[in-house]
Parts: sequence; C-alpha cells; structure tokens
Amino acid sequence: MLSKTPSKSDIEASHKRISDYIFKTPVLTSQSINKLCGCEIFFKCENFQKIGAFKARGATNAVLSVNPIHLKNGVATHSSGNHATALSYAAKIAGVKAYIVMPQNSKKIKVNSVKAFGGEITFSENNQQSREKTLQNIVDKTGAYFIHPYNNYDVIAGQSTAAKELIEYNPGFDYIVAPVGGGGLLSGTSLSVKYFSGTTAVFGAEPECADDAYRSFNDGVIYPSVNPKTIADGLLTSLGDKTYPIIKENVKNIFTVSDSGILAAMRLIYERLKIVIEPSSATVLAVVLKYPEIFKGSKTGLILSGGNIDLFEINRSDINFES
Amino acid sequence: MLSKTPSKSDIEASHKRISDYIFKTPVLTSQSINKLCGCEIFFKCENFQKIGAFKARGATNAVLSVNPIHLKNGVATHSSGNHATALSYAAKIAGVKAYIVMPQNSKKIKVNSVKAFGGEITFSENNQQSREKTLQNIVDKTGAYFIHPYNNYDVIAGQSTAAKELIEYNPGFDYIVAPVGGGGLLSGTSLSVKYFSGTTAVFGAEPECADDAYRSFNDGVIYPSVNPKTIADGLLTSLGDKTYPIIKENVKNIFTVSDSGILAAMRLIYERLKIVIEPSSATVLAVVLKYPEIFKGSKTGLILSGGNIDLFEINRSDINFES
Repeated sequence: MLSKTPSKSDIEASHKRISDYIFKTPVLTSQSINKLCGCEIFFKCENFQKIGAFKARGATNAVLSVNPIHLKNGVATHSSGNHATALSYAAKIAGVKAYIVMPQNSKKIKVNSVKAFGGEITFSENNQQSREKTLQNIVDKTGAYFIHPYNNYDVIAGQSTAAKELIEYNPGFDYIVAPVGGGGLLSGTSLSVKYFSGTTAVFGAEPECADDAYRSFNDGVIYPSVNPKTIADGLLTSLGDKTYPIIKENVKNIFTVSDSGILAAMRLIYERLKIVIEPSSATVLAVVLKYPEIFKGSKTGLILSGGNIDLFEINRSDINFES
Repeated sequence: MLSKTPSKSDIEASHKRISDYIFKTPVLTSQSINKLCGCEIFFKCENFQKIGAFKARGATNAVLSVNPIHLKNGVATHSSGNHATALSYAAKIAGVKAYIVMPQNSKKIKVNSVKAFGGEITFSENNQQSREKTLQNIVDKTGAYFIHPYNNYDVIAGQSTAAKELIEYNPGFDYIVAPVGGGGLLSGTSLSVKYFSGTTAVFGAEPECADDAYRSFNDGVIYPSVNPKTIADGLLTSLGDKTYPIIKENVKNIFTVSDSGILAAMRLIYERLKIVIEPSSATVLAVVLKYPEIFKGSKTGLILSGGNIDLFEINRSDINFES
C-alpha cells in the first residue's frame, strides 16, 4: 500500500499486479477525425475496459495492495458512478464483500451494474454529507476497509496504467489529454508520462460548468466542486489533497469545454469510430476541437475514460447543440 | 461480371478482388450476453466496415467486376441508405463518377455521407416509381452504369464475404443469422455457409412490420414490401428475383422480430459490447432473444450489418419498450 506519490517502479508493479484482471484496451484511429482536426489522434479505449471504464484499474490495484488482514471485513466506498462498480468488481476478485453507498438519484444503469458485480448497496441522500455519514456508519458497523474513488495513491497508480499502455503501444506523443474530475486519472496519466514519455505534455479536459480543477490548477488552491451542472456526470467531484499536487506539478494545462462541445465530440466519436462512450470521455476530443491551433500537426493521445451510458437517455431535450 | 448464382470460386475471387478496399472486420464476444442467451455468440462487426456497413463489400465487388469500358460514364443507383454511400465509395476507388438518386426524405446522415464520398445526388419523390424514373433519366442522360443495391450477382458475391470471414475466423457454427431486407446479405451469407461451412444452418432476421421476406419465403412467391413501418430502416425493401431463389434454397428459416425486440437487443449491444450499431443490425440478436430454445447451447454467428445511425435521433418517443 502506497503512502506517497507513486514512483516509476510503483507504477510498473501496479501494472503487473492488475494485469490478469484488466483488459489491455485497444487504441483506435480515424482518418476522417484526423483530417478534421489536422493532427494524428490515438484513442485509448477504456470504454472497452472491464466494468466499462478505467476505474477497474485503480480499484483493482487498491484492493490487491491492501494487506489481506484488513480486507477480511470487506471494502466500502461511496460513489454514484463507475468507481462503485469497479470496487464491486475488485472485491469479487479478492473474494470479499463490497459495501457501496450510492445517492438515491444515481442512474439506474449504474445501480444495476453494481448489483451485477455483487456490490451491496446502501442509498444515501443526494449530498456529500449524507454520503460520507452513511459510509461512516457502514464502516463502523462492518469494519469494511474504505477505498476512496481517487484520493488514494494505489488508485492513482492503477489509473496511471492506461496512459502507460498507450505510450507503450505508440511512443512519441506530443500531447496526451485525459478528463479530470477528482483527478485520479489525470494525476496517474501525468505520472506515467513523466516516467515513460518525458517529452510529452499532459493536458486535463474539464466541463466548463464543473471547472473547479481548472480554477484550482490556476489559483494554486483546491476549490470544492459546488453545484456542478454538466452532461459529463463522471467529472463532478473536486480534486483531492493527493491528486492535486501531482497534477499541479506534472500537468501542463487544464482546458474547459462546454456541454455543447462535449456533445459534438461525442457525436463525432459515435459516428466515425462506431464506439459507445459516456460524455465524460468526449471532453478530450472537445478540447482538440476547441483549440485547433495547439494540436495542429501534432501526435496526440486521448484517453476515452468509459462507456457506461444509457443510450436511450440521450435525447434532444438534453442537447444545446445545432446539428 | 456474374450472370448466375455465384459459385465457390466466384466468391473466393470476389473476396480477393475487394480485399485491398475493405476491412477484415473484428469478431467480438461478450460473456454477459452469452450468459443471458445461454449460448456462445460471435458478432461479426460490419459496423466497423468502410462506410460503416457491409454494403461496401458488394458495391466494391460489383464496380470492380464491370468491364471498364462500361464504367467510363460512371455508375448510378437509387438508394436512401448505405448502398448509396457504398457505391460512391466504390466509384471513387474505380476513379469514376457516382450518380445517386435519393428520396427527399432520406436521413441527413446518409445524405452527408454520400456527399463526403463524392457521390452526385439527385433527389426524387419519396416513392419507388419516382426513384426509378429519376434514375432512368440520369442513366439515359449520362450513360452511367446502373448497380442495383442487391439484385445483382456481383453484389451478392461481395456481401457473402462477411460470412466467409466469420467462418474462417472461427469455424464450426451451429447457426449464422443475418438481417434480411432485399436479401443481398442473406443470400450471400447462405452461399458462403453452403460452400465453406456445410453443417451450419442460416437464418434470416426481419422486422415483423416489414415481413415481406418472411411471407415470401413461406409462401414461395416474392411479395412486394408494402408500406413497411419499422425502426430498422435498412430492411424496408422486398426480395429480388436473384436473391429470392438463393435464399429459398439455402436459408433454413426466416424469423420476424418486433421493433421493441430490436430496441432491446440494440440496447444490450450498446451496453455490453460498447459499439454503435444501427437498428437493422440488432434484428439478429433480437431473434436469439426471442427464440432461446432454438439457440440454447449453440455456437452462433450474428452478422451486425452496419453502424450508420444518428445517435441523437434515438429518443424515447421512438421506443415502445419498457426499460
């Protein structure tokens, strides 16, 4: 179990630790998207990852890093999203129980997914305080071990392996862009780039109506995420005291994008790559489309974080986007 | 240019002819779908094909099979769908013009796609008579060579190569299921199975509100497709006098499925495989879900015909489906 920023060998060990339980996801390209963007783009497809998102990497690494003695009463977390499913998946691997606190307004597809992996759900009210209090009650009662969704060095090391695979698949990127919510994926990505691809610049992609990471990065303090409103429902949380310093040190910039930009990018990926991604994943291409002058002529890696979306929830009423 | 039902060597020659211009598309599997269906399913993913559908195979084979003398004035067809784009693609390969007659109510995504491949569009009224008359005028005026969307032996031979690849990838299927509209894909599939996988049974999958092929197959006459109403917009046409006899001889059965069954299957493929398919593609899984007793314990190949869909056109108002 890591107690400080993962080193190069920590990341290598993490990758090895989880390799039997995660997919080495494919990297896709599209000539027509390259033409449109004026650069060469490589999409790292974590939508094809176990549980449909990169979160399987971090949760599995964290659970397998905990001393088995501490696992005997199971693991616990609060999450409305992919970490809830990922921790249920990881607990199953370790043969222990997973206690998941989910807000009552969690999407049905996520609730079903947690159940499918055998997670035991307790619903809380729809606010951070209730989520944390409900979790504390469960931990007190069961003795389950808490695995934070992102503010955990083993989780960060796990998430870093997506970028590591991308770099191994095709070295020499000018830029790699990852979405940023709590910062587990972005901090991990920036560490893999630092250790395995020193000349690559890392950017974060964030919805402009959930821009706490952007502001935190620029102002040098961790802002809470207050009442974020975006279709990118995986990017609502604020940075943590473990993810923030790594990002501050190793990420070159964070760019924000509008929901209409996210939807346009999402549509492009559906149409050209024929793959299903969730809105959070589309932020990275939205950044490329918004800042063509930065990416022109570059070789750019984009991390598509996941594909857990209820297709039939997408309808025109959500869309502020002229087609 | 073939003047009779393609032979085994015709299909082999066709496959070779088009191999530089088409993708050998991936075959995907899903443990959770297998578990749900109680059988082992292999999805042949023609949604990842050039132009986003299997139609690239048939159109390319047909254009490359015509004597170049007849191509000098270009090629022409009428189609509201994937054949329109496929013929534009094939014409580009051959370096000739493509004249495409499309009904005025064609979907914007298909119109844009034809334009992107350089096809010259003439809009007709929204009925078969106007489509055919408009096409005849163009052929008379330009001398372009007409390539029928399915009732053409070279097109059939081209479409057959999808099943041929599936069988080569993984021999020994109990069943292979393909969607049926005009019958180009289904007749071609049945020929590849006959020549390369003799013990496999071939089924057609058809929307129940466009069930002309089902009725034709059972009654022994070609019925026209009258006022079909289904979300599977690639399967609206009737069988032709070249596709029908091949299907009648080599297909074991045609099953119909409801639009709600198609949507349920489509949702399952989006959720579990994380790939984008159009509704016509989902008919094949809908058949498996509707007739579990037939498929139980089998090894089944399903041909996903294409992925050209405007994501944001799918909304709850289309859906007669309890989620």
